[in-house]
Amino acid sequence: MSSKSLKIIPMGGLGEVGKNMMVVEYGDNILIIDAGVMFPENDMLGIDYIIPDFRYLDDKKHLIRGIIVTHGHEDHTGAVRHILEAFQAPIYATRLTMGLLEVKLKRGGLLKDAQLNVVEAGDSVNIGPFEVEFFHVNHSIPDAVGLVINSPGGLLVHTGDYKFDHTPVDGWPTDFSKLGELGGRGVTALLADSTNADRPGWTPSEAVIDGALDDVFKKAKGRILIGTFASLISRMQQVANAAQRHNRVMAFVGLSMVENAKMARQLGYLKVPDDLIVNIDQALKMKPSKVVLMCTGTQGEPTSVLARLSTGSNRQFDIDPGDTVVLSSHPIPGNEEMVHRTINRLFQHGANVIYDPIAPVHVSGHASQEEMKLMLQLVRPKYFVPVHGELRHLKQHAKMARELGIPEENIAVIENGTPVEFDDDKMIIGDRVPGGYVFVDGSGVGDVGPMVMREREALARDGFVSVYVKLNGHQGELTGEPEIVSKGFVFIHEAEDLFERAKSRIASSVKDGEGGNVAGRVEKDLGRFFYAETGRRPTVVVFVSETP
Amino acid sequence: MSSKSLKIIPMGGLGEVGKNMMVVEYGDNILIIDAGVMFPENDMLGIDYIIPDFRYLDDKKHLIRGIIVTHGHEDHTGAVRHILEAFQAPIYATRLTMGLLEVKLKRGGLLKDAQLNVVEAGDSVNIGPFEVEFFHVNHSIPDAVGLVINSPGGLLVHTGDYKFDHTPVDGWPTDFSKLGELGGRGVTALLADSTNADRPGWTPSEAVIDGALDDVFKKAKGRILIGTFASLISRMQQVANAAQRHNRVMAFVGLSMVENAKMARQLGYLKVPDDLIVNIDQALKMKPSKVVLMCTGTQGEPTSVLARLSTGSNRQFDIDPGDTVVLSSHPIPGNEEMVHRTINRLFQHGANVIYDPIAPVHVSGHASQEEMKLMLQLVRPKYFVPVHGELRHLKQHAKMARELGIPEENIAVIENGTPVEFDDDKMIIGDRVPGGYVFVDGSGVGDVGPMVMREREALARDGFVSVYVKLNGHQGELTGEPEIVSKGFVFIHEAEDLFERAKSRIASSVKDGEGGNVAGRVEKDLGRFFYAETGRRPTVVVFVSETP
Repeated sequence: MSSKSLKIIPMGGLGEVGKNMMVVEYGDNILIIDAGVMFPENDMLGIDYIIPDFRYLDDKKHLIRGIIVTHGHEDHTGAVRHILEAFQAPIYATRLTMGLLEVKLKRGGLLKDAQLNVVEAGDSVNIGPFEVEFFHVNHSIPDAVGLVINSPGGLLVHTGDYKFDHTPVDGWPTDFSKLGELGGRGVTALLADSTNADRPGWTPSEAVIDGALDDVFKKAKGRILIGTFASLISRMQQVANAAQRHNRVMAFVGLSMVENAKMARQLGYLKVPDDLIVNIDQALKMKPSKVVLMCTGTQGEPTSVLARLSTGSNRQFDIDPGDTVVLSSHPIPGNEEMVHRTINRLFQHGANVIYDPIAPVHVSGHASQEEMKLMLQLVRPKYFVPVHGELRHLKQHAKMARELGIPEENIAVIENGTPVEFDDDKMIIGDRVPGGYVFVDGSGVGDVGPMVMREREALARDGFVSVYVKLNGHQGELTGEPEIVSKGFVFIHEAEDLFERAKSRIASSVKDGEGGNVAGRVEKDLGRFFYAETGRRPTVVVFVSETP
Repeated sequence: MSSKSLKIIPMGGLGEVGKNMMVVEYGDNILIIDAGVMFPENDMLGIDYIIPDFRYLDDKKHLIRGIIVTHGHEDHTGAVRHILEAFQAPIYATRLTMGLLEVKLKRGGLLKDAQLNVVEAGDSVNIGPFEVEFFHVNHSIPDAVGLVINSPGGLLVHTGDYKFDHTPVDGWPTDFSKLGELGGRGVTALLADSTNADRPGWTPSEAVIDGALDDVFKKAKGRILIGTFASLISRMQQVANAAQRHNRVMAFVGLSMVENAKMARQLGYLKVPDDLIVNIDQALKMKPSKVVLMCTGTQGEPTSVLARLSTGSNRQFDIDPGDTVVLSSHPIPGNEEMVHRTINRLFQHGANVIYDPIAPVHVSGHASQEEMKLMLQLVRPKYFVPVHGELRHLKQHAKMARELGIPEENIAVIENGTPVEFDDDKMIIGDRVPGGYVFVDGSGVGDVGPMVMREREALARDGFVSVYVKLNGHQGELTGEPEIVSKGFVFIHEAEDLFERAKSRIASSVKDGEGGNVAGRVEKDLGRFFYAETGRRPTVVVFVSETP
């Protein structure tokens, strides 16, 4: 690249481009936007979470001028601690985003050395050669921002996660006038959220939830439990407002819910009178018809309050017949089965469960097609890079941009790790650098790769059989019975006969061969034997000892 | 139960009540409705499919008068062969349903002895003391029926899977007049499909797909590939019609697609002129703009045509840039990730992929709330048992029935295995009998239970470590180095150091103890060691040999 051109590289994410991290470069200066985690897909067995693969920065640490976090969700903040373990750089975020980040950094013992800079929507901050303007956007968390990045190499606009909500909970819509002004300034490139690019129309306003909640509060005779993400501060506000309208008090349940509510109230993002809030112990002693509880667990996560309530394993209290449970969220793709199971079990315990589509108790935090077109129309960029979406979303977003008059050659549908350079009057798509994701499993970061994953897949499918064979070293004959242990293969107590025959097979396998690799031969023969007998292919491990 | 009362017992299904099988009893007579399979959920590791647990019938085989299959989908026909392996009984089904069933029974070598009775909607058949009337219903497969079961114990109506489509592909709507007539006859109990009970409104007609297909055919410049279920005969008809309107020829790809199309044409359910159909070899030689291919694989199943095309591993042909791929189906819950991955990969190969919600290229085959209300209104049953749905759907369906005036005590929301008896003027909910599901894994039916499943979960999460320790039998001291093999735990080549330290730990573990259960002690100590070092809990198996 020309050393004086503007370049971007999206990183991280499970095929969602630039969702979790974006690198912006100008000359010898690097700016990082977001550093989040993703939760593993169903076939990523045993993985706890996923972080961006930022090896690209290994030899460029001294060039990093700052890290900007656009909003406080896990998929934009969760990997900041991994970054700070690798190198130091000043962090820029709005007040609520920083509040949520501080809670995380504190737990990791990283808060002390962190260089935190709180900004506000409307601010303009110089970070190295970049002048960054922060503008307000609506999302399913307050205090989210988009970015205008001015550099001698050009003007970049990054929407962050956004939607256009004319009636948001906090009364503060996306900054239309800023976006309109940008159209006149000549934007080099727009990077825009594509999450909902396959959804026609306009995402409903958060305001529709108020009506749905009113309906629930009117009909509910017993306790009301509302499940949502602990970071959905605006949903807390809506529930608080509904509680006030319907003469109920409100309690937060679950550590993250309690912590986030406290912090959001302190910072003024959650406006609730003191007498509306009680703690859970007080709430449990009150008349059910006077209480609403806000809980975690809308994705069926086994350790969440709602999941524990659904299995009857919550310590503090149980579901009572007559409770109304509202799931104010959508299942993240891949979690549907867990969520549906939780709903069924709550019904089993006698609760009435209300979820979308039964009532509009949740709306998306991302723009739909008509909003995306409006964003393109307002910003009128020369180049367009759809981000924050899978390939199918980027393709749809690109199609809309073409329909709005952006020439095909000015649109870059790229993958994570692919650099795009905006050089004098041309856009250059570079060669891919590492920019995918890294597995975090237990305390290990990156030590579980495709081979271990394939082994786990085989084990998950058919289990394993481990065998110990004792040979007479001199003649190479079997002495004593082979020992066999299996897990995850067949129910052992009903398979004694199978294992007896396996032992005979081992005996003939030892006998047939001419010495050589006895362990390897027995493994192969046993594998064949088990497949013929059961149609399964357990992983077989054989130890051979030779006694003199 | 009174020996002369009418009883039902729903069976099978993954929490979906009576979806896969329903037992109807009157006196010493049993009638079975449907016998289908379900595909395992994501955490049912290694399981191939699931069949109803019909142990209840073990000592009642001589009482079974017949098996009725309401339509030709896998979740209603797939377990018939397992039933026929356990006992013989005459089978009743419409022509297309029987055709699809015969293909299955032939493969299993069970066709010869099967007693097959083809019926038609409108027929009335005596099966033991039951007089069964078959009436036509719309579903996403032609020739589906609902049942009116007359018995001295009462009149039962079973909807089967249904929707009300005023403009179905075959021009044959659900039999409104039959349903209306039933209202006047005094129906004892209605068993009705609840699949979409949480969807407001009315399920769109199959006819909307015609418009969406026209749009696709008009815009597509290259080849068109349409993916759908091989049993969706009416979708084949719609594609054939669109091909004819837009001057393309049509080829079927994939064994089940080719077989079903052939059978449906022979039986007259797929009406396509001969010159419209070519085989795949011919199609591949033709101009892309003149061809449409119908393929399997809308659920991302790895062995399907679309999945192979998406990974570039299809033998006969590849995706070409310019191809248009239409996914005419919805992901079954739990399959979303696989489906989205397939879509992304097809885009990567240069195809334009069209799927719902981008265009209405699929509609559900099940009734929505307004249709369910209409069914209740037409049939006007005394008792109501919502079936074919999870608990959350049954609860919604029951709620609608209450709103329509059926008293709460006349509605039975039950689980699989729970008998309901309709006795003189009362409904008795009995004690649960076995009626859940059984895992089929490889050639094993029912030999994988909760314990094996828990072992597979542990293996999937953290893998295993198998160890062989040689002791000096006399002193109980370690002789030689322990051997360690691990799979699915850590990447061995980068964990040499970890395993060296594990060996030291084994040595001290052997030394510390006072003889006793050395294997057990080493297993425990190693488990702790690995957790402290890696945060993972591999399954540890230790063999100890003592040499004299």
